[in-house]
Amino acid sequence: MRTLWRAPYAGPHFRASYDRILTATATMLVNNNTIHIEWGDCDPLGIVYFPRYFEFFDACTNALFEQAGLPKQELLRKYEIAGIPLVDARCRFILPSAFGDRVNVESAITKWGTSSFSVEHRLYKGELLAVEGFETRVWVVREPLDPRGIRSQTIPQELIDRFGPIEPEP
Amino acid sequence: MRTLWRAPYAGPHFRASYDRILTATATMLVNNNTIHIEWGDCDPLGIVYFPRYFEFFDACTNALFEQAGLPKQELLRKYEIAGIPLVDARCRFILPSAFGDRVNVESAITKWGTSSFSVEHRLYKGELLAVEGFETRVWVVREPLDPRGIRSQTIPQELIDRFGPIEPEP
Amino acid sequence: MRTLWRAPYAGPHFRASYDRILTATATMLVNNNTIHIEWGDCDPLGIVYFPRYFEFFDACTNALFEQAGLPKQELLRKYEIAGIPLVDARCRFILPSAFGDRVNVESAITKWGTSSFSVEHRLYKGELLAVEGFETRVWVVREPLDPRGIRSQTIPQELIDRFGPIEPEP
Amino acid sequence: MRTLWRAPYAGPHFRASYDRILTATATMLVNNNTIHIEWGDCDPLGIVYFPRYFEFFDACTNALFEQAGLPKQELLRKYEIAGIPLVDARCRFILPSAFGDRVNVESAITKWGTSSFSVEHRLYKGELLAVEGFETRVWVVREPLDPRGIRSQTIPQELIDRFGPIEPEP
Repeated sequence: MRTLWRAPYAGPHFRASYDRILTATATMLVNNNTIHIEWGDCDPLGIVYFPRYFEFFDACTNALFEQAGLPKQELLRKYEIAGIPLVDARCRFILPSAFGDRVNVESAITKWGTSSFSVEHRLYKGELLAVEGFETRVWVVREPLDPRGIRSQTIPQELIDRFGPIEPEP
Repeated sequence: MRTLWRAPYAGPHFRASYDRILTATATMLVNNNTIHIEWGDCDPLGIVYFPRYFEFFDACTNALFEQAGLPKQELLRKYEIAGIPLVDARCRFILPSAFGDRVNVESAITKWGTSSFSVEHRLYKGELLAVEGFETRVWVVREPLDPRGIRSQTIPQELIDRFGPIEPEP
Repeated sequence: MRTLWRAPYAGPHFRASYDRILTATATMLVNNNTIHIEWGDCDPLGIVYFPRYFEFFDACTNALFEQAGLPKQELLRKYEIAGIPLVDARCRFILPSAFGDRVNVESAITKWGTSSFSVEHRLYKGELLAVEGFETRVWVVREPLDPRGIRSQTIPQELIDRFGPIEPEP
Repeated sequence: MRTLWRAPYAGPHFRASYDRILTATATMLVNNNTIHIEWGDCDPLGIVYFPRYFEFFDACTNALFEQAGLPKQELLRKYEIAGIPLVDARCRFILPSAFGDRVNVESAITKWGTSSFSVEHRLYKGELLAVEGFETRVWVVREPLDPRGIRSQTIPQELIDRFGPIEPEP
C-alpha cells in the first residue's frame, strides 16, 4: 500500500509516519525540505517565477542523496562520475506561492533503471499540494578520450540499496 | 502538412520558408530566437544548468507574443489580465550546451483551449535538436473581490487569430 | 566597543554572545543565517557565481527585518511602502565557496539616514571571512498620481528603534 | 580628453563616434550591448531584481573580450587560466528598468594592474544613465599541486594591448 507517499496531504500525522519509515531500512527513503520563498524568487505577479521550482527540486534531489548518506559532492568523488544530469524535467503547478511563504517539499526516487532513475517531488503549502515535480536523471561518466564528452553507465546496486525498495502504486 | 514545424532540422532553407509563412496570415506563427549561452547559465559540469532552459523558453514565449504584435506588457494592459501563468512545464534534454554556444529556438502555440493554450519550443545547436520544451499556460484575471487571487477566463478569439491556424500533426 | 560586530571571527563563542545581545534591546540587532551552497549557485569553475551572493544578502536583509519582528511582506503592508530598493550594492570577494559548503552570514543595519539606510553582511566559511556585502537602500512609496512611479519617504522612527543603537566604529 | 567614455549620454551621435574609435587601434575599446529585460528578471515591484544587473554586466565583460577577439572560452584555453573571477563588484542604481524595456550597456576596461583589472559598465535607458557597474577581476591559474586551488598570475601584455590605451580622466 502506498498511502503515505501517494497521500494528498502531508500534515503532521503523515510526517510523523515518515519519521518511522526513515528509521526502518526496509521502506522507501523520503526526504523533507522546508523552503522559504524569497523576494528574488518572485515575478511581477508577486508569485514564484516557475523556473525557480526546478531549482528548488534540484536542490531537494541533492538533499535526498545527502540523507542517503552520500552528499552529491561525495557521490561524484566516490563513484568517479561526472554528474547526474537530467534527460527529462516536468512540473505541474496547482497553487501559486508568494514571497514570505514557507513551503514543504517531499522527495523520493520512484524508479531505478539500468543507468537512469526518476525522482518525484511534492511541494505543499500547509496541507495543500501546490506543485508536483518529476525528474529523470542519468548516471554519467566522462568519456575517457574526450574530456568534454559524457556517457551513461550502470548505477551501482549498493547505491540503489541505500534508498530502500520502491513502493508500488496502490 | 506540418513538414516545416515538425522538421528535424532548422537550417537556412527552413528559416527562409518561415519568413514566407510569417507574411502569409493563413499559416501558423513560428518565432525564431537566438540565445547566447552565458557563463552564469552554466553549472560546475560546464553545461547549461537545466532550469535556465525554462527561463529561455519563457522569454521565447514572450517573444512569440511580441512577434504576433502584442508584447506581453501590452497584452496585460489591453486585455486587463493578470498574466499567462503555467500549469504545466516540461523539457526533454537531448544534447547539452556549454558557455559560448549560440543556439536557436523555434517557438509556436500548438493548441488553444477555452482558457488555456500550449506552447512548444525546439532548441537547436546548429542542425541538431538539443532541447524540447512544452508549456501549458492559462489566461487569468485578478479576482474582483480578492486582490491576491486569480481565476481563468475565456481567451479572446481575436488574440487566437493573430497566431494563424494550428497545423495538424502529419 | 564594537568587538563583536567588527570581530574577524564568528565562532561559537561569538554567536553565544550575539544571543545575549538579541535579548538586550539596548544593543545593535545582528542576524545570523546559514546558507547551503547549491549546485545551481555554482559556475563552471565550480565556485559560487558571484551575483548569487547579492541574492543571498538580499534574503539576509529580509531575514534581519523578520528578526526585528517585521517580515518584509508585513513591512510593506504596515507602512504602505512600495519596497526598500537598492541605490548601491557592493561585495568584496575574499575566499570562494563551492557546492556543498555551509556558510554563515551575519547581517546588521549600520547606518540610518532620513529616507535611506545601510546594511552590512559578512559571510564566513567556518572561522574565515569569505565575502563582505554592503547595501544602501531607500524607503519608497508609490507616487500617488503615477502608479508606476516611486519616491522616497522619511523612515518611521519606531521602525529604526527596533534595530537598536548603531554601534560606533572602534 | 575622455568626453566620449565619460559622457553622460550615449545617443546615436556618441555611438557613431564609438564606431570610429573601434576601427582605430589607438583608442580604448568600448563594447555596446543591447539587453531586453525579461519577465523573469523582474521582482514583485515589477522592476529588475538588482542581482540581475551583475549578471548582465558579467555577460557584457565576456562580450568585451569577444569583441577584442578573445571569447572567454578561447581566453581560458589560450592562456591556460582557470578564469577571471571577481574580487570586488559594485553597482549604483539610478533609475529602475521594467519588463519589456530595451537597455544599452557600454563596457570598457578602465585599469590594468599586474594581475588584476577593472571593468566599468554604464546601462542606459534611451539617453538616461540608469545603472553604473564596477568590477575588479583577477587573472588566475589553477594551483599545480591543488586542483581545487587557484592563484593570481601576471596578465600577458599582448592581451592588454588588444584593448587599446586607457583614456585618462578628463
